[in-house]
Amino acid sequence: MTSDTSLSQHTLLISAPDEKGLVYRISKVIVDHGLNITSNGEYVDAETGQFFIRCGVEGELDRIQMVEDLNAVLPAGSVIDVREKKKKKVLIMGTREYHCLADLLAKHHYGDINAEILAVVSNHDHLRNLVEKFELPYHSISTKGLDRAGHEEKVLNLLKQFDFDYLILAKYMRILTPHFVDTYKNRIINIHHSFLPAFMGANPYGQAHDRGVKIIGATAHYVTDDLDEGPIIHQSITHVDHHFTPKGMARAGRDVERSVLGKALELVFNDRVMINGNKTIIF
Amino acid sequence: MTSDTSLSQHTLLISAPDEKGLVYRISKVIVDHGLNITSNGEYVDAETGQFFIRCGVEGELDRIQMVEDLNAVLPAGSVIDVREKKKKKVLIMGTREYHCLADLLAKHHYGDINAEILAVVSNHDHLRNLVEKFELPYHSISTKGLDRAGHEEKVLNLLKQFDFDYLILAKYMRILTPHFVDTYKNRIINIHHSFLPAFMGANPYGQAHDRGVKIIGATAHYVTDDLDEGPIIHQSITHVDHHFTPKGMARAGRDVERSVLGKALELVFNDRVMINGNKTIIF
Amino acid sequence: MTSDTSLSQHTLLISAPDEKGLVYRISKVIVDHGLNITSNGEYVDAETGQFFIRCGVEGELDRIQMVEDLNAVLPAGSVIDVREKKKKKVLIMGTREYHCLADLLAKHHYGDINAEILAVVSNHDHLRNLVEKFELPYHSISTKGLDRAGHEEKVLNLLKQFDFDYLILAKYMRILTPHFVDTYKNRIINIHHSFLPAFMGANPYGQAHDRGVKIIGATAHYVTDDLDEGPIIHQSITHVDHHFTPKGMARAGRDVERSVLGKALELVFNDRVMINGNKTIIF
Amino acid sequence: MTSDTSLSQHTLLISAPDEKGLVYRISKVIVDHGLNITSNGEYVDAETGQFFIRCGVEGELDRIQMVEDLNAVLPAGSVIDVREKKKKKVLIMGTREYHCLADLLAKHHYGDINAEILAVVSNHDHLRNLVEKFELPYHSISTKGLDRAGHEEKVLNLLKQFDFDYLILAKYMRILTPHFVDTYKNRIINIHHSFLPAFMGANPYGQAHDRGVKIIGATAHYVTDDLDEGPIIHQSITHVDHHFTPKGMARAGRDVERSVLGKALELVFNDRVMINGNKTIIF
Repeated sequence: MTSDTSLSQHTLLISAPDEKGLVYRISKVIVDHGLNITSNGEYVDAETGQFFIRCGVEGELDRIQMVEDLNAVLPAGSVIDVREKKKKKVLIMGTREYHCLADLLAKHHYGDINAEILAVVSNHDHLRNLVEKFELPYHSISTKGLDRAGHEEKVLNLLKQFDFDYLILAKYMRILTPHFVDTYKNRIINIHHSFLPAFMGANPYGQAHDRGVKIIGATAHYVTDDLDEGPIIHQSITHVDHHFTPKGMARAGRDVERSVLGKALELVFNDRVMINGNKTIIF
Repeated sequence: MTSDTSLSQHTLLISAPDEKGLVYRISKVIVDHGLNITSNGEYVDAETGQFFIRCGVEGELDRIQMVEDLNAVLPAGSVIDVREKKKKKVLIMGTREYHCLADLLAKHHYGDINAEILAVVSNHDHLRNLVEKFELPYHSISTKGLDRAGHEEKVLNLLKQFDFDYLILAKYMRILTPHFVDTYKNRIINIHHSFLPAFMGANPYGQAHDRGVKIIGATAHYVTDDLDEGPIIHQSITHVDHHFTPKGMARAGRDVERSVLGKALELVFNDRVMINGNKTIIF
Repeated sequence: MTSDTSLSQHTLLISAPDEKGLVYRISKVIVDHGLNITSNGEYVDAETGQFFIRCGVEGELDRIQMVEDLNAVLPAGSVIDVREKKKKKVLIMGTREYHCLADLLAKHHYGDINAEILAVVSNHDHLRNLVEKFELPYHSISTKGLDRAGHEEKVLNLLKQFDFDYLILAKYMRILTPHFVDTYKNRIINIHHSFLPAFMGANPYGQAHDRGVKIIGATAHYVTDDLDEGPIIHQSITHVDHHFTPKGMARAGRDVERSVLGKALELVFNDRVMINGNKTIIF
Repeated sequence: MTSDTSLSQHTLLISAPDEKGLVYRISKVIVDHGLNITSNGEYVDAETGQFFIRCGVEGELDRIQMVEDLNAVLPAGSVIDVREKKKKKVLIMGTREYHCLADLLAKHHYGDINAEILAVVSNHDHLRNLVEKFELPYHSISTKGLDRAGHEEKVLNLLKQFDFDYLILAKYMRILTPHFVDTYKNRIINIHHSFLPAFMGANPYGQAHDRGVKIIGATAHYVTDDLDEGPIIHQSITHVDHHFTPKGMARAGRDVERSVLGKALELVFNDRVMINGNKTIIF
């Protein structure tokens, strides 16, 4: 038994150019490996002709052999991802706002998320006190005396010391360069404090107040080079009225941000999200 | 080419006792028939060990042969339903409230639901004027001089003249007997004016007002012998506050009822609902 | 007893530069007129220092005397609006989409909105059949052979023949000129098929689909010169996922549009909305 | 200047048998005291003929004199409550679930709720570790060897040592006796893990799962002698589907519970809730 073999459950995430018989071929490989399919979702993007499937399987799985066997039956250009059902390793980045971070720390403390938080990284010392209550490492890298590139380089150097699956931007208020984003492609998740694409950019609650909206929202998305434009994982809203000041909207919004990020991470940590260009497929 | 063969798309709805290889076996039959799977959802009820699958397929399909071939590979006790993607034939029953009925009539008039309304049946004449505007048959069967059994028998006699797929209770305010329900098992859909199981029975908005709730809702469900207890298809809610009288709650509720019934019927008419005991699976 | 005197209930809508004692002075006038306050909402916009009050009163009311007496105690620049509680007279404009119009027609037919629909005006004949079912006048003014100004002039000439309180744009798909908007200032209400300010302009569901959003919405607002920028009355949303095509989003969106316009009009027709610059206050 | 006089803002909460001129009389007293009304909400319960008003006032206020002056102009049976705008003193009770408590502790730590948490009281030691992270007193009173009455007496004896405004049951899983409830009448707030009145009593998520609902909810309410029957302050819901196990429903529900309790407490701590029999009025 090698390290690629496990009795635990696995999730297969496969995308491929669509053609007849893909489900049959994939399910045949799974049967030939003696595995049972416990859940199965499929989606074909009619516009792009791309096929996506997520299979939960149980049984002893030889990952290398399975990928080889799947590759043998799938069209060129297929992407096969066989994931073990285990806690994801995550880093969290934040700046000053505590609410999403505190929620994740408490859930982590009580084993209520499918993730292990390795450390919290910030450009401020503001959240150190909170993080250290939960006995987790806190790394603050001040921007003092550093330009954007210089600061980001220091952050990247720190991040490289960690072996993590996802980087969670829990109200990290610095814009990341394309280099940073590319380094952790499809692994950075941000919570934006508006119902994207409404109110992109800075101070969305101020913008929302000025516009007199009756609903505010939050958006969890993968981070891409285009600010606020990455694939959306989850969104939700809450009702506001004329009584709400920008500060009151921000307070109401914090509750939505926390819920939306929490829900998005639950989906991601359970391998239920596939990226399809600038969109997500949620199984 | 027989009437069971069609170039149009079909939906396979299969339930079976779960065992290893079901997806493989089903998808093999589909491939052997030269069909392409365009959508695929699977669910295993861990409590009952029952497997459910919904496959959308395209290509020329021989229904009798397909059912035979599926039966040959599936365990005893499997239920196989191969449905052509076509407009469902429906009857609507109502009493006095117009809102759900008017919505369905307008959608039907503009081809916006996947159904053909054959007629509207009522215990009153109240809605005749509305239905006849849309040039549909209206049958009212008065309860005058009839006991419950007598009235229902007349209704059943009328219904038997129609070849319909579903019977929609769009605010039909008479309780149906088990005999009636059994006659159209799993084919009667009701909209209940509360967020079940809250406020079962009569006058739910009065009950909601007395209780001082901050949210009211509506529930679309299959009708079973147990009043208000059938499998729930869809539910939604709206916010209310202390200003709402029972009448105001009813008005706000009408909007939710209409939306919930509309959404539930869209699911049902597109063969996206499977019944699992007292629950539904929505694919 | 003059036509300004009535035993029926009235609503007072007053805005004024805020200063100490306004509620006292207004309630004193009301008491001096022998009236009872049945509901009372007040709001002070802290940014602009503007005071807004809505009082529902019952008793015999001399409107001219009341306005005079209120003016005597209120600061310069106050706006006093004494409205009788009666059905509003409305015109509806539409183009091709039936869903909001059909909802209003059915509600109107059953006396379920506090408004009298005088006529429906359109740039197409498409909706005539629906409107005439409900025995209401339908005026279609084709754009054929007319430039924007020429068409709008014909529409305005038609509108001038009606004595109406509000003009409802129930999916009227032509852009109105500032001249048109000024002619019926604060009296034109539009339903926009997106969650403004997201997806302004044309084809919002196509935009929403391209962006991969998980929620779509609708916005009812007063129309001002700035397209899609007028004071928002009501907004709501519904959840979508990757399965939704633009057409499917539009279908789901229609249900939200209908609900949002219906709710906004209920607020407007019951004199519960005040305009505060580019925002609304909902009492 | 006495302790009853303050430059800070106050909130007047008054209920009275409705009669003509109440707003006038109350606003006259306020003006005579040289105060400015900054917000004003009024509601008359048409069923009971009871008048409710909430006035936010600014200026130096002599509380004793104001109550005396208001009493002089109001009908017999009026209840006058003049509250200083200050942080409420609260005790929190919990048992094993951390999520509502952790949210309140984090908000309290960052000054994000209008309350001072004096201590946390529990029938278990389970949450001590969390509470002590935030350097707050934790008192656990084991039920070991005690009957219900004996345990509650010990809890009451502990509570009597604190001067608190509200007692928050943040998933405290013991039923309180009428004696306990009476001791802190209208001051105990509970979060119930269902959309009341659906699923009263124990294990609501198990009940919800068995019923196959498509929505689950949570309810924050004042505690009265009738279990799960007290005045509802706030409710909210989230969508679930057939994939949710009872445990998954509980996880999704925790997010709603936390939001609902948080929102309800924000209303209560800002004196925006009045109790009207078994209902609440939210200003």
